[in-house]
Amino acid sequence: MNQELPEMLERMGRQARAAAYQLAKLSTAEKNAILFEMAECLRAEQNEIIAANVYDLTAAASRGLSGALLDRLHLDEARVEAMAVGIEQIAALPDPVGQVLESWTRPNGLKISQVRVPIGTIGMIYESRPNVTADAAALCFKAGNATLLRGGSEAISSNLAIALALGKAGAPEHAIQLIPCTDRESVALMAGMDRWLDLIIPRGGKGLIETVVSLARMPVIKHYDGICHLWVDEHADLDMAVRIAVDSKIQKPGVCNALETMLVHAAIAPTFLPKVAAALRGKNVELRVCEKSIAILTDAILAEEDDWSAEYLDLILSVRILDSTEEAIDHINHYGSHHTDVIVTEDASMVQKFFSGVDSACVFHNASSRLADGGEFGFGAEIGISTDKLHARGPMGLRELTSYQYRASGAGQLKGEP
Amino acid sequence: MNQELPEMLERMGRQARAAAYQLAKLSTAEKNAILFEMAECLRAEQNEIIAANVYDLTAAASRGLSGALLDRLHLDEARVEAMAVGIEQIAALPDPVGQVLESWTRPNGLKISQVRVPIGTIGMIYESRPNVTADAAALCFKAGNATLLRGGSEAISSNLAIALALGKAGAPEHAIQLIPCTDRESVALMAGMDRWLDLIIPRGGKGLIETVVSLARMPVIKHYDGICHLWVDEHADLDMAVRIAVDSKIQKPGVCNALETMLVHAAIAPTFLPKVAAALRGKNVELRVCEKSIAILTDAILAEEDDWSAEYLDLILSVRILDSTEEAIDHINHYGSHHTDVIVTEDASMVQKFFSGVDSACVFHNASSRLADGGEFGFGAEIGISTDKLHARGPMGLRELTSYQYRASGAGQLKGEP
Repeated sequence: MNQELPEMLERMGRQARAAAYQLAKLSTAEKNAILFEMAECLRAEQNEIIAANVYDLTAAASRGLSGALLDRLHLDEARVEAMAVGIEQIAALPDPVGQVLESWTRPNGLKISQVRVPIGTIGMIYESRPNVTADAAALCFKAGNATLLRGGSEAISSNLAIALALGKAGAPEHAIQLIPCTDRESVALMAGMDRWLDLIIPRGGKGLIETVVSLARMPVIKHYDGICHLWVDEHADLDMAVRIAVDSKIQKPGVCNALETMLVHAAIAPTFLPKVAAALRGKNVELRVCEKSIAILTDAILAEEDDWSAEYLDLILSVRILDSTEEAIDHINHYGSHHTDVIVTEDASMVQKFFSGVDSACVFHNASSRLADGGEFGFGAEIGISTDKLHARGPMGLRELTSYQYRASGAGQLKGEP
Repeated sequence: MNQELPEMLERMGRQARAAAYQLAKLSTAEKNAILFEMAECLRAEQNEIIAANVYDLTAAASRGLSGALLDRLHLDEARVEAMAVGIEQIAALPDPVGQVLESWTRPNGLKISQVRVPIGTIGMIYESRPNVTADAAALCFKAGNATLLRGGSEAISSNLAIALALGKAGAPEHAIQLIPCTDRESVALMAGMDRWLDLIIPRGGKGLIETVVSLARMPVIKHYDGICHLWVDEHADLDMAVRIAVDSKIQKPGVCNALETMLVHAAIAPTFLPKVAAALRGKNVELRVCEKSIAILTDAILAEEDDWSAEYLDLILSVRILDSTEEAIDHINHYGSHHTDVIVTEDASMVQKFFSGVDSACVFHNASSRLADGGEFGFGAEIGISTDKLHARGPMGLRELTSYQYRASGAGQLKGEP
């Protein structure tokens, strides 16, 4: 291990905590002015950022990185401008800090209120895309939190250039810190720093999240797989179900709110399956179907047990015939990833059953699973879609980057007799 | 290790998950009827519970357990009745499940609501007091959660008898499960069961919490120390400050919301310190004071550095003179445990500064720190006082034992063009 790494991280953690206390004192107007300045600094340093990115791209290409991965890494003028605009959009969002969630007066006259406050310090661990450096830091900053960022090794030069630019915007010192090296040990060291980091958010593949989960002493907000289901009930509008199936599957197949499994009520399967199969195959979707379905879709591939828990992220859909909404709920709770699941039906009692039975962050009725995100929900910006059940579940906006504090005012109230 | 332990715990975890899905379907009336039945079952099995408790007490005495610890373990008719009444009080509380936190309609017509749902499954790990078995299980049950309970070895017979009684009340099978052995390994095994347990709450000493924190793969809600402060500002009502200091320190010194450190503004110290010292010493409180204070309280003990971070839980108070509210905030954030801190002042601007500067779950103005608990806040019952910042902070009631779900209803809304 890099001998100086533990000491450096400890120092950065302590600095993050001190910065958080400074940040908590800023007004909304002060935070917004700094965010607008951050956007301007990104624009002003555009050439430096792009030059650093060329360095990362060259190194990545020489290590044999492929087209899609290289594209994720790539920054040009338009992408730097998009980062700057993203920060300006964050500045325009309402500030959750200071919001009074509830207030009440106790019989003894004590006035209590529950007030949103920043979480404090947030560690972000992410992989290749360098724009996360700007997006995550700006979101956390708007909610009054100091960040300790640890990006992927492929993007280190780009990330450093972006962090350097953000740092010129007049935020409190150390409010945004990027770890300037990408030693593997830095993840384990961050995970042990519960004194300095109130929360860790890993953004990346399952392996990274698993590592953080197994090591972290502080809360971790996880963004695991999306194995999303569509249940086409017996009383579904079948044309609507076809449109929702196609949109959920093909609109962007590589993302966590794309459809992976379609469950179809036995009563409508003979009519519906040929219709939806034609539409999906017209979009090059491969179907992997259960034994009952293959009697209807004779040319489909037979699904194996693993297909029911697969997150394809590709133009593949598993299909299963079931006899009731109860069976659909059981299938979804057993094989799903508790992300987003959809029922198409005209029967309100089935909607209620589905909503209260499916243990997922988002349950939809007659709408595409692709609408499960912070932008579509109107949150304005999103740090991710949490698959956790505590603190933040589903699309996470600014509000989920805050904690709360109880503030009570009295006139000398005591517990016992004076 | 007990060879069958991993298999047994895995089975219990799977059963807890299945029970949670059954529990989620119960109406408030059904849950309340079961809770009242649980109270009746405790009363009906009172003799069996007390007999089991005698067995635990005898074993504990033979291992040399001391008076206070034996008393914590002890159950008699009155204490069984208190457990039963506690459950009836929980039944009478409003059900948080199903509450609509927010609802809105998007420009595309999608109607979204954020609805409280149970967390699912909760692991409780606790030490000697057997009443926790009934209290924790009933609170979790009311919020729709299945529990896996792991009590301390000293109370195993009492806990088993209580769990047996609760189990006769007609709750869904496995809704409340007590691990029937107390091998040390069971804590580590529970901590690894993130597939089956959504949350672990350790209740007990710092050692237990530390162990769970370092092993757990799922969220942990922690109840760490309370190093509570009182800041007596220059514009304090000094008589009120004396009353609050005495109540906060002596009303029940062994609990987490008792006062441990008093900070006094230099401008009023010469008047205030002799007054408060007389009152505290009248209640046998030992004062450990800073160098500046000793010039005023010449017969006090000089505090050492460790005193500022000590949770005495005893009739001892550390005292320090500072020059401003800013210095008090810095002291509290540095040495405190972010639990409950109090300012006494008549200056509203100092209250605002203190509230937004002190990074603690509860910040109080002109009131005793002993009022920081769920009962005093009006939550009706409390599972503990969380020192975490995520999900639950400060006094935790039923509401903090829930998660939420986004439910969206549409008319065929898609992400892309149809």
